Amino acid sequence: MALIVKKFGGSSVATTEKILNVARRILSEKNPDDKIVVVVSAMGDATDNLITLAEGIDNQPYRAQYSREMDMLLTTGEQISIALLAMAFQKLGHHAISLTGAMAGMRTNSVHTKGRILGIEPARVIEELNRGNIVVVAGFQGADKFGNPVTLGRGGSDTSAVALAGALKADECEIFTDVDGVYSADPRVVKNARKMREITYREMLELARLGAGVMQPRSVEMGQYFNIPIHVRSTFNDKIGTIIREDYTLEDKDFEIRGVAHDQKVAKIAVLGVENVPGVAHKIFAALAYANIDVDMIVQSIRNLERNITDMVFTIALNDLPEAKKVINRVAEEINAATVLIEEDVAKVSIVGAGMLGKPGIAARMFGALASADVNIDIISTSEISVSCLIKASQLTEAVNAIHDEFFAD
Amino acid sequence: MALIVKKFGGSSVATTEKILNVARRILSEKNPDDKIVVVVSAMGDATDNLITLAEGIDNQPYRAQYSREMDMLLTTGEQISIALLAMAFQKLGHHAISLTGAMAGMRTNSVHTKGRILGIEPARVIEELNRGNIVVVAGFQGADKFGNPVTLGRGGSDTSAVALAGALKADECEIFTDVDGVYSADPRVVKNARKMREITYREMLELARLGAGVMQPRSVEMGQYFNIPIHVRSTFNDKIGTIIREDYTLEDKDFEIRGVAHDQKVAKIAVLGVENVPGVAHKIFAALAYANIDVDMIVQSIRNLERNITDMVFTIALNDLPEAKKVINRVAEEINAATVLIEEDVAKVSIVGAGMLGKPGIAARMFGALASADVNIDIISTSEISVSCLIKASQLTEAVNAIHDEFFAD
Repeated sequence: MALIVKKFGGSSVATTEKILNVARRILSEKNPDDKIVVVVSAMGDATDNLITLAEGIDNQPYRAQYSREMDMLLTTGEQISIALLAMAFQKLGHHAISLTGAMAGMRTNSVHTKGRILGIEPARVIEELNRGNIVVVAGFQGADKFGNPVTLGRGGSDTSAVALAGALKADECEIFTDVDGVYSADPRVVKNARKMREITYREMLELARLGAGVMQPRSVEMGQYFNIPIHVRSTFNDKIGTIIREDYTLEDKDFEIRGVAHDQKVAKIAVLGVENVPGVAHKIFAALAYANIDVDMIVQSIRNLERNITDMVFTIALNDLPEAKKVINRVAEEINAATVLIEEDVAKVSIVGAGMLGKPGIAARMFGALASADVNIDIISTSEISVSCLIKASQLTEAVNAIHDEFFAD
Repeated sequence: MALIVKKFGGSSVATTEKILNVARRILSEKNPDDKIVVVVSAMGDATDNLITLAEGIDNQPYRAQYSREMDMLLTTGEQISIALLAMAFQKLGHHAISLTGAMAGMRTNSVHTKGRILGIEPARVIEELNRGNIVVVAGFQGADKFGNPVTLGRGGSDTSAVALAGALKADECEIFTDVDGVYSADPRVVKNARKMREITYREMLELARLGAGVMQPRSVEMGQYFNIPIHVRSTFNDKIGTIIREDYTLEDKDFEIRGVAHDQKVAKIAVLGVENVPGVAHKIFAALAYANIDVDMIVQSIRNLERNITDMVFTIALNDLPEAKKVINRVAEEINAATVLIEEDVAKVSIVGAGMLGKPGIAARMFGALASADVNIDIISTSEISVSCLIKASQLTEAVNAIHDEFFAD
């Protein structure tokens, strides 16, 4: 007997035919004694259609004054899909019951439209499992202490599923998605990218941070917190995918790195000719932090030792650039910088792997691979389990392939 | 200061523009100190669209096995309209909050898709009113003691509104509808039908039972139970409608009858040539009751005193006829009846009024009016506050007008 939480996203339940297919698949994979909880998102475009309705009342429905009512509105999306999926199980001859996030005990804070899970009280879920039901739970939602419906922020349904698996002490949480696992690099960029059988929470978090889009970081953190294995697998076939867990159980743990990530949505800002006195770096980065802009790679280089003049170079997310320009131009004037340069045609390529700990040669092999491919490195930054290089965006494909070939040859 | 519960049906909130209109109207009629609760149904076709979705899972979604999930599905219809209406109030600058039936404290039994209200615990509604909110409540729904969503049976939203008004000890419950009040006869049949300013619960219930479709009986019963005046008025204009209450407060209480009702959806069944021995009537009507068929008017007449042969004639609702035919043919054979006659081209015309109590001349005037119009009476039945006649369906319009002229001349 196993207790398994399975999560299906909106595209998997976009039509009633697809909902019936999800139910058939779950029943075909279920052992007689298994207890199954299914977490689902709203059907395909349902959420967008609800937002369009709200725009009929006010064309800016996401203004803060409406956030509670938007949650009242949007939580109906998942409520529809859970009811239909429970009916699909019944149609196929299996007992099933649907529960909203509130009914499943997902307790959130009261920050409407971007709530966070505070705790889970899954008594009703357990009761219904013990009655022989497949329990279908609405993802992306919970209720605050007053009973108001609250939707979770980005990646909400994955987070719901993993958190519920944790609270239920499930054997596994399966995330069904449109890719069939976590790859050593983006298969759209690297033809012979290989699917990893296992990856650790830490590595997955680092990959996500560095641009790999398979899982939202919050749900991986949640898995790590509860120590629940997360099985990322395909909606379209029944192959084993990738299991995200605390530590490896299989022999392929000898890979020195787990993946090559890349991110094109970055911009580089260089503040040149700054007097190198205490407090200059603080002025720049405090102003950015105040504007809620995350800074990623940072390099400070000495341009003129005698005159004590330095350059500050750093990267940010591309969509923060308009706001960042305003902030930096203001600060540059204040600190009397010579000039500000902005570059948008840059990209970041990274390697990630717990295996690189204590193996200094790994970073060198990455730089060597880039050199062989004639790719110039602009900035380098490292964490305990990753190395990142900023390069020209036009060289991204060669760069990712060269690094992948270096570490995943054979 | 007044506490008023207002109910708007699905056609009044069919689009976001109409929802904004409802909000504008309520605000324009609101005195600054008034406390307002608005009960709404699902938008226009929303419920039908949800049923169509369910039919994608099983073409018989109303089978009993699905009833809980149908409620989970259908309750989203009102949840969408309450969220949008609360947003509309906010857009227009007034504080408002939406509450599902469950959140508003509508406690029901667990008979899914035709639940009954067991009690109301409106603490949250009162709290939100005291905070200065207009409270928008989902009609047609509540939750059972396990927290499962339950939809109410027919007329559910009216019943929700009146019951909530009762629990809140509201000053009045306004039911907005597509007619502007209760008329002395159906205005589509009687040109000079007059709108009644007041009518009692008893009379309204009797009119509803006898075919007047303005209000569902359950909601009138609920009003009577809580002694809450129900104001039936038009969605399309701001005229005063009809107030349903325990007793009259206005001088027009001197009308001897309150209305002429009619019902074309009836059928007559005659079981002819039955031996008049004890138990024959029981056999016929027990069989119909067992098949859940309500019998309305009943006449037993002696055809042949010497041979002790009798005829049993009665009416039923037209949509019960197919089932009734089967039952009656079986019983007729059993009791050895000579023949069974079915007539579908019949109609029932009735007068209703508490004023007829103790005034024996009223019924006679009705019969006289029918005679003057050359309308033959087939069956007569009476209750304390009504008299009904079965006539030919083709003479219905003349019959209703003749009776109406008799009692509402001037």
